[in-house]
Amino acid sequence: MSSRVGRKFVVSLFGQSHSAAVGCVVEGVPAGRAIDFADLRAFLARRAPNGAAYSTARKETDAFEFVGGLVDGVTCGAPLAALIRNADAHSADYDQVRRMPRPGHADYVARAKFGAAHDVAGGGHFSGRLTAPLCIAGGIAKQMLRLRGVEVGAHLARVACIDDAPWPSQGLAPDDVGRPGGKSFPVVDDDAGMRMRDAIAAARAAGDSVGGVVECAAVGLPIGVGEPIFDGIESALGRILFGIPAVKGVEFGCGFAAADMCGSVHNDPYRMRDGHVAFESNNAGGILGGISTGEPVMVRVAFKPTSSIFLEQRSVDLERGCNADLTLSGRHDPCVAVRAVPVVEAACAVALYDLMSEAGLA
Amino acid sequence: MSSRVGRKFVVSLFGQSHSAAVGCVVEGVPAGRAIDFADLRAFLARRAPNGAAYSTARKETDAFEFVGGLVDGVTCGAPLAALIRNADAHSADYDQVRRMPRPGHADYVARAKFGAAHDVAGGGHFSGRLTAPLCIAGGIAKQMLRLRGVEVGAHLARVACIDDAPWPSQGLAPDDVGRPGGKSFPVVDDDAGMRMRDAIAAARAAGDSVGGVVECAAVGLPIGVGEPIFDGIESALGRILFGIPAVKGVEFGCGFAAADMCGSVHNDPYRMRDGHVAFESNNAGGILGGISTGEPVMVRVAFKPTSSIFLEQRSVDLERGCNADLTLSGRHDPCVAVRAVPVVEAACAVALYDLMSEAGLA
Amino acid sequence: MSSRVGRKFVVSLFGQSHSAAVGCVVEGVPAGRAIDFADLRAFLARRAPNGAAYSTARKETDAFEFVGGLVDGVTCGAPLAALIRNADAHSADYDQVRRMPRPGHADYVARAKFGAAHDVAGGGHFSGRLTAPLCIAGGIAKQMLRLRGVEVGAHLARVACIDDAPWPSQGLAPDDVGRPGGKSFPVVDDDAGMRMRDAIAAARAAGDSVGGVVECAAVGLPIGVGEPIFDGIESALGRILFGIPAVKGVEFGCGFAAADMCGSVHNDPYRMRDGHVAFESNNAGGILGGISTGEPVMVRVAFKPTSSIFLEQRSVDLERGCNADLTLSGRHDPCVAVRAVPVVEAACAVALYDLMSEAGLA
Amino acid sequence: MSSRVGRKFVVSLFGQSHSAAVGCVVEGVPAGRAIDFADLRAFLARRAPNGAAYSTARKETDAFEFVGGLVDGVTCGAPLAALIRNADAHSADYDQVRRMPRPGHADYVARAKFGAAHDVAGGGHFSGRLTAPLCIAGGIAKQMLRLRGVEVGAHLARVACIDDAPWPSQGLAPDDVGRPGGKSFPVVDDDAGMRMRDAIAAARAAGDSVGGVVECAAVGLPIGVGEPIFDGIESALGRILFGIPAVKGVEFGCGFAAADMCGSVHNDPYRMRDGHVAFESNNAGGILGGISTGEPVMVRVAFKPTSSIFLEQRSVDLERGCNADLTLSGRHDPCVAVRAVPVVEAACAVALYDLMSEAGLA
Repeated sequence: MSSRVGRKFVVSLFGQSHSAAVGCVVEGVPAGRAIDFADLRAFLARRAPNGAAYSTARKETDAFEFVGGLVDGVTCGAPLAALIRNADAHSADYDQVRRMPRPGHADYVARAKFGAAHDVAGGGHFSGRLTAPLCIAGGIAKQMLRLRGVEVGAHLARVACIDDAPWPSQGLAPDDVGRPGGKSFPVVDDDAGMRMRDAIAAARAAGDSVGGVVECAAVGLPIGVGEPIFDGIESALGRILFGIPAVKGVEFGCGFAAADMCGSVHNDPYRMRDGHVAFESNNAGGILGGISTGEPVMVRVAFKPTSSIFLEQRSVDLERGCNADLTLSGRHDPCVAVRAVPVVEAACAVALYDLMSEAGLA
Repeated sequence: MSSRVGRKFVVSLFGQSHSAAVGCVVEGVPAGRAIDFADLRAFLARRAPNGAAYSTARKETDAFEFVGGLVDGVTCGAPLAALIRNADAHSADYDQVRRMPRPGHADYVARAKFGAAHDVAGGGHFSGRLTAPLCIAGGIAKQMLRLRGVEVGAHLARVACIDDAPWPSQGLAPDDVGRPGGKSFPVVDDDAGMRMRDAIAAARAAGDSVGGVVECAAVGLPIGVGEPIFDGIESALGRILFGIPAVKGVEFGCGFAAADMCGSVHNDPYRMRDGHVAFESNNAGGILGGISTGEPVMVRVAFKPTSSIFLEQRSVDLERGCNADLTLSGRHDPCVAVRAVPVVEAACAVALYDLMSEAGLA
Repeated sequence: MSSRVGRKFVVSLFGQSHSAAVGCVVEGVPAGRAIDFADLRAFLARRAPNGAAYSTARKETDAFEFVGGLVDGVTCGAPLAALIRNADAHSADYDQVRRMPRPGHADYVARAKFGAAHDVAGGGHFSGRLTAPLCIAGGIAKQMLRLRGVEVGAHLARVACIDDAPWPSQGLAPDDVGRPGGKSFPVVDDDAGMRMRDAIAAARAAGDSVGGVVECAAVGLPIGVGEPIFDGIESALGRILFGIPAVKGVEFGCGFAAADMCGSVHNDPYRMRDGHVAFESNNAGGILGGISTGEPVMVRVAFKPTSSIFLEQRSVDLERGCNADLTLSGRHDPCVAVRAVPVVEAACAVALYDLMSEAGLA
Repeated sequence: MSSRVGRKFVVSLFGQSHSAAVGCVVEGVPAGRAIDFADLRAFLARRAPNGAAYSTARKETDAFEFVGGLVDGVTCGAPLAALIRNADAHSADYDQVRRMPRPGHADYVARAKFGAAHDVAGGGHFSGRLTAPLCIAGGIAKQMLRLRGVEVGAHLARVACIDDAPWPSQGLAPDDVGRPGGKSFPVVDDDAGMRMRDAIAAARAAGDSVGGVVECAAVGLPIGVGEPIFDGIESALGRILFGIPAVKGVEFGCGFAAADMCGSVHNDPYRMRDGHVAFESNNAGGILGGISTGEPVMVRVAFKPTSSIFLEQRSVDLERGCNADLTLSGRHDPCVAVRAVPVVEAACAVALYDLMSEAGLA
């Protein structure tokens, strides 16, 4: 069992969707660092449902309390521990799930793994709710990275076959990567965003859901971050990103498109620029041999469509051992990728700050 | 620094391309298990260059020696330690590289990270050569998994935009996943394979290289394998697969295609079949919430084109601080994806056997 | 930074003496295990100050709240997370300490390590207060071990040169090791206990403090528990026991006395007894090669005298850079070893249950 | 299973007493550090048997080969891997042991844990032979620590109730701690050493063995090294020291004697000296709250008498299930503590350099 990631900047998540609280323990922040709570609250607000047509109706203020690790808002060298109380939990919604596993959810495999004791309410420990404490850890990591000149940002790159304007792989400024996060709908091209919202609203109206792709960039990462072989940047980001519910694919730089390219096109040439070694392109997504090149780290993350839909689905009744058709009620995002944008930022920030710490750059 | 992966089945890799040897230490194999050396040699032979037009001319017999962990070929409970001597090393080929970083390789970032002490010969510790000891560990993991009814196999799914016949996501038999590995060119559809070889030979003739995609499947994995959040199957496979040189993308089940689907299509329904709960489809790639469903685990891995090409490339002279055009000599695969097929199997076997061990199923 | 121990049964401690709360995250308890809260409260009550003459006046009800990992008091497979609020904190007592480090405490080294941001109040994260959440984890481990027939108990073996009746190294029954913990003063020989209390009260009256030795035994541990070399029982217990504040020595079996023995006396002979292999003695303290023999595991832990005394002590004024005499006020145990008895049990239970889990016996 | 220790400076040991080789993988040495092989050979020679009356007759040249991690004797950033071939192995000596476990050895418990597959020859992976690769890792750690002004040394403090002159807890110079290691018999007081040798020779003549105590000091360690709670210096040294075969006790500073002291005597006062904060005494053994104080780190390690004696011992015949008297032949030290002196230095150096690395001081 493990809900922990990191080697020097270590994040442990705890809690279930409907337990008393969810939270995190975060080790590895140097002592003497002030936490910007307003910034952290604003970051968590991006993940919280906002009542829009593309979001769940569940009210999650995500108000956090730090119970350890701080003195007057400054880290003291002890592990950080933070809680978010689970206020608006409706366990009643989930009685049916105990008997009938929801297609696309972990209900059935979790029951097979943990037995009847598994906390099925809201998906228990497998709930997207756990991304809230991940965002606390990630929000802190983002602040620590910013102190080192590294800015991590993401946007909704694709929803329902509608593409946002892609980010260039070179020349991204810190403001550029932060801009989408400052909008109510995190895209670069607001026209594309409008069409995405329409598509999401249409899916919701049809009782269905859609998937999406989130693109994340880290700019300002110095060259030389990342450890050999199994602790390179791709490995570290891959591990943590696949820990986000609904993620089914991760690619860096040209990613799967690179498999269709030839070396003479894909290799990023070197040139001297202003007396420094520079890359003429960034097909590598800022990573060679698992180590940062100094160019922006570019990663794309594929999210499957929300598993909770309101159309009738084919399931089984585990108690009676027969087929059963299932129609879900409850409150769910029709497109998890939207609120996942800050979660991807959080995951990337946690992994990158851990590698920065490993490299002695925390 | 870390070249180690796993929690209970722990693999540590050591050595450089041109050091005295490469090797691995493998912890976590239960005592009393006989190692099938003929099977292990045959597995490593699949990774070794075979002199074909799509392979490097470097001679690597990959003859291994176990120096610890075995008594008469049976595990005794101590860590396994194995060596492969580096016989056919031509360090002379790499003097140029000390000054001029090869585009697409880790030369430049490794020098930035480790300084002039970095072992540039053959890419040092970043060399694909390290996949040989990974295959020793993986070959052992494959044998241990086989004892538990789990078969891991892979095929070359795509090269230079040529697709092999894809594997069905359901109904794969152990023989099916093993078949491509038994061929000199690891594909399902030999006609497609012939076209791939022609494309690779053409790239070689042009002094260029091509990328590819490897598809891997694990059949027979019981339901319930995988740990919550950051130690799910996708996270574990993601971490280790991105540790293979040249991997730029990893996806499970429908992967990136899932981002374009709606939930009513992507969700895998449940039905009772012969008194057991069954899935009607396997879009999830055998994984829900990071935990195995009992369906085949399906993963696709994108490899960038071989970075070492023989066309003139734009680089810099680090000593003289000026631009320099680089033309590589040496011996390199024009398509790393071909020999990577057993490496992907090895990596998946290592990660899955570790999770099996975590679940008490070793 | 790390306040975490264990590989499969993993305990993370958080909080400071005067932060909002102290607590723990506990991974690795199998799903479906009922937690006996009455037993757990009773165990924590043993650690809490009881107002006796040998105890601090600080009121610590140590009332805990589980915020994750349980459904109706039964483990669900998610990490356990528990909190104890810090009610009775008097930070005012510690203003002086910011300037004048207390001899024997971590104040000065922690300031050197963490800077002025270190939480000096009550010793911050270094406070014995952190042993309360350790007792939550240990109380749970004791319950899990009991389910496997293993009983862990301890007694106050020595205080101020007064020895309790020692435990025999063979033939201890579960009730034997549990008995001292059931008393208000945890000794085997109540007369010795009375003399210890007098010595402690005398030290308190003199404004001074005394040290002590705690002996702990684990009976019922099956043979074969413990991993090779650095994860043997002695290594695992040694690491966690030295994590308890004020511990300066740890010995197993004959311990330091073994250094004065000859092999013919120290070696424990084997004999057949009722058709089973038995040991004729247990000088090894139930451990050979780091692995359990099936005999009781016997460990002795040396505690230094309480660092907080009320006599004038020589210190320095860090702000003015001059010598300063320090006289402490506040509330402190004159002998930490007394309340440390359940803490030693907790630490041993955590380490042993982790090794049981590693051995697949959880 | 685990034979690995460390978090940033990570040492993995492999091999058995009679396997092809023993060796280690060492991660975490910064790139660009030259290894002094003459110094390393000299260090290993201190552990190797020297044919003296107090030593085994087994010939172990302990000639090592580095197969990875170095270029021209300088670390390149890849893990270090080193081998020592097992030349002089007499497996024939151990056939008897398969049936009759040797009292005091791990034979019986290892068989219970690993089954008949356990490598009984020479104690297999539990053999003191594994301390040779530990000394390779430790010799490297000692060199790295020396670069940081830290000198680790040890002496034989007590054998057969004969005490060497103890080291003062303050004012030790680097030369002081290195001096005993430069002698053929590692003591401070050569007269005491002579008496120890006589006692060891007498034990050997009687077919018996004796135990001993090793005292180790690390001078020059800066203040602030060590992590909170479970990764303090005592925890780190305790874990690794108890991993050395035959160690049964570990104490720091006054250790068990501290349990008999009162706080007013044990607390180390602070005074200003030459404008700096200084300690007036070092009863703490250079450690407060698990963190270094800047005073010498002082640790004492108790070794039980060599388990292999040549007197008839009571054992059992596991095959015939009856009592059996056992008389060992073979080649064994009558006092393991003598050759353990450099091993204790190695273990302490490994643990301290790991903590230095954690603190960013590697």
